[in-house]
Formats: sequence, structure tokens, C-alpha cells
Amino acid sequence: MDDPVLLTGASGRVAEAILADLGDEYDWRLLDRYPPEVDVPGETVVADVTDREAVREAVEGVGAVIHLAGDPRPEAPWESVLTNNIDGTQVVFEAAVDAGVERVAFASSNHAVGAFETDERTPDLYRAHDDFRLDGTELPRPGNLYGVSKAAGETLGRYYHDAHGLSVVCVRIGNLTKGHPPEDYERGQAMWLSYRDCAHLFERCLEAEYGYEVVYGISDNDRKYYSIERARDVLGYDPRDNSADHAE
Amino acid sequence: MDDPVLLTGASGRVAEAILADLGDEYDWRLLDRYPPEVDVPGETVVADVTDREAVREAVEGVGAVIHLAGDPRPEAPWESVLTNNIDGTQVVFEAAVDAGVERVAFASSNHAVGAFETDERTPDLYRAHDDFRLDGTELPRPGNLYGVSKAAGETLGRYYHDAHGLSVVCVRIGNLTKGHPPEDYERGQAMWLSYRDCAHLFERCLEAEYGYEVVYGISDNDRKYYSIERARDVLGYDPRDNSADHAE
Repeated sequence: MDDPVLLTGASGRVAEAILADLGDEYDWRLLDRYPPEVDVPGETVVADVTDREAVREAVEGVGAVIHLAGDPRPEAPWESVLTNNIDGTQVVFEAAVDAGVERVAFASSNHAVGAFETDERTPDLYRAHDDFRLDGTELPRPGNLYGVSKAAGETLGRYYHDAHGLSVVCVRIGNLTKGHPPEDYERGQAMWLSYRDCAHLFERCLEAEYGYEVVYGISDNDRKYYSIERARDVLGYDPRDNSADHAE
Repeated sequence: MDDPVLLTGASGRVAEAILADLGDEYDWRLLDRYPPEVDVPGETVVADVTDREAVREAVEGVGAVIHLAGDPRPEAPWESVLTNNIDGTQVVFEAAVDAGVERVAFASSNHAVGAFETDERTPDLYRAHDDFRLDGTELPRPGNLYGVSKAAGETLGRYYHDAHGLSVVCVRIGNLTKGHPPEDYERGQAMWLSYRDCAHLFERCLEAEYGYEVVYGISDNDRKYYSIERARDVLGYDPRDNSADHAE
């Protein structure tokens, strides 16, 4: 990717992980509703992702978009996810297509499938011996309205791919924490995504060839119940971390 | 179903088919943004489906909701489907759960999967010899933003079922026409839904036992590429029409 890359939600935690490792690797355009509070490795755009005109300008001349912006709270109310996550994601896809952008990597979430974690399946589901796997071909089962909004974003991506040829990858991000996996939290250990694996995964989203994909974004945890095979096969994702290596 | 049934979008075409056969079978509460222009077999509520307070009142005391309201145009702009179809459907599900309603039948659409009709597959897909079938377990591939909004409504239904125990059936309605199938339109003949099969299908949605289902709403057409097996098995759907019986 030689063209600039637009990163939305640039002040968020996923962006922090990406920029920590890839800050010097790309020509970044960093969009967030708030101005950055730290030094950032690129041009900044202060705008809300639902501001159609601002997003239109921000995608001008970029080769790819990593779309992270949105209300990140699992407990976010409907009105917020409807606007910030569903409408905001449509704004980004539409602007990307209109500007001739080649690809969009969309930050989806484990919450799009949170309701697979039924009382019958848990806590076994979170343990290494359990062989239940979600692989991205299953219909979403959101655990909250935030998860509904992320599933809707994935479907928007499917539409913009099919109708307009945009390459779209939806990354169902697990539990991203810096340094080590969550402690005393089996679920978080099962879906841990280390900072460096996160950056590497989004680098692959910028470099690999694909049409439309839904992949899980977790490290290579022993405990996993999300398959990372599709991310390995299509994107060349090769994670280095495993929450079991940080056993308490 | 002895309790009243709330029908939203009561002045639309699907409602017309339902009420033609089932007008006397249920105690109807008929909600539409416009007052009825004809005699109707029930109490009427004039309100927009996005009006949270009005919908809250409308669901009070009903046993089931048939939710048809929304912008029905395949070419509807994003702003309209975001509000009328996505937000409107959340309003209905949320109000239904809060009022202790037992079940909601949601009018989804063939447009939620329209992009399966690729250049490679069509027109063979529309012909009786072709054995390609969609069965409702596939991830949506909307052909337009209207279809995106219907897929989002299905995912909302999944959430309200999983989180709140609401029985939800999403009916991907085909091409509903009165009297006979569309002429000179293979696609429409493949997904034809006759008026009486439509009424019968929604009657089954009110009477059968289910948790969460996605079914296709078409007659038993020779040309079909949507499976009706799930509707038969779970709902007891037993269609009487077939577009082939109306061969031109």
C-alpha cells in the first residue's frame, strides 16, 4: 500500500495498537472526533464519522481505509450505535466507493456473536479442551445492541463489495489488551488479541488480496473458540502471542 | 392466538393479502402512518413506527406483532431505510419485549439476499432445472441498501430472541402479486408469493411454536431457488400455489 491510509477512530485503543507498530510503515491520515492528545505519525482530521462532507474529503486520495470509529461501549444505547456505528459505517463505505478507494478494513467485534456464549456452552467454551469454533460463516448472534450495530456494518460491507467491487474485510476483534491478557477472566483470555498481533493483522488487511471476508481478530490462544484459519489462509495472518503463555 | 394481533404497515400490500384471508380470524390492531382508505377489520392506530411512545401504546395487550411497516422501495435511499426500517424495527422489538408480547413476525425481504443473483448464476437460477437453493442459514448478501436494512432487522430479531426470549420469525418475502405471477419476469416467477399463500404463511407465524427463524416466503414454485423446507418443517407452511400453473 503506497497510497495514504485513512484511519478512523484514530484516538481509540485499536488505533493505538496499530500505530505503535505501523506508525512509520504507512502514510497515515488520522481521523477522530477529538484532536489527538499525543504526538501522532500522520496528518490529522478532526471530524465526526457521521459528517458526510468531512468523510468525503478525508477519503480523497487514500488507497485504503481502516474504519475503527464508532461508539465502542458494549452497553451503548441504541440511539448511539444507530448513529455512530451503523450510519457512520455507511458514510465511510459510501465515501470510499465514491472516491475510488480500493479496500476498507472494518473493525467489527466479538459482540456480533456474543450470544453464542450460552449458559450451556460456558464456561467450557472458554477452555482449551473445548473444540467449539466460530469461523465467520455463521449468522451473527449479537449479545447486545452494540453487537447488532457491528453485524449491520458487516452487512453494509457485503453490499458495498457486491455492488461496487470494494474489497472489504471485517475483523471481529476480540479482547485487546496491552502487555498481557486479562487476568481472572477466562472469556477475555480465550479472545485475547495482543497489541502486536493486532497491528500485524491490520497490516495484512492492508497488504493481502481479498474480496469480502469476515475474520476473527484474536491471538493464537490455546483457549480459543474463534477460528483464525480464515485469517491465516486469506490474509496471511501469523500471530505470535497466546494467552496461555501468560498463565497466572 | 386469542389475544389481539398488532399489524404494522397495515395499509401496505402484504397487509392487504393477510387481511383478505385472515380479517375475521384475529382481533386486529392495525397501525399505519396514514389512516385507512378502505373499511378495515379492526381497531386502527395512526402513527409512525419510529414513534416510540405510540408504538409502546399500540403493543399494550397484544399477543403478537406482525411487523410490516417500513419503506418498501428496493431503491429507497439510505436515510429512509436507516430511520424507517432499521430504527423502526428496533422500536417495535423493544416495545414488544417491554410489553411482554410473545412473538413477532418480521417482514424481511428477498432483497436481503439479492446479490446471490450474480451474472454467473442468472438466468439459470430462475429456472426449474437449476438446483441452487438458499435456505436461510446463509449470511445475507443484500442487493441494495433496502436489503441491508432488512438484514439488520433480522439481526435485531436474533438479539431480541436471544437476550429477551421473544419468539421471532423473519420472513424473506418474495414477489407478492395478486391473482397471478408476474408476467415476462422469470425472477418474479421464481419468487412468486400468491396472496393466499402469504396469508397462510403469516397465519402459521401466529400459530406455530418457534424460537428464532429465518424463512423464505414464496409459493411452491417449480422455478424456486429459495428453499421452503424450513417454513414447512417449523411453521407447518403448506402453500397451494405454483407460478408454473400460470404458465404464459
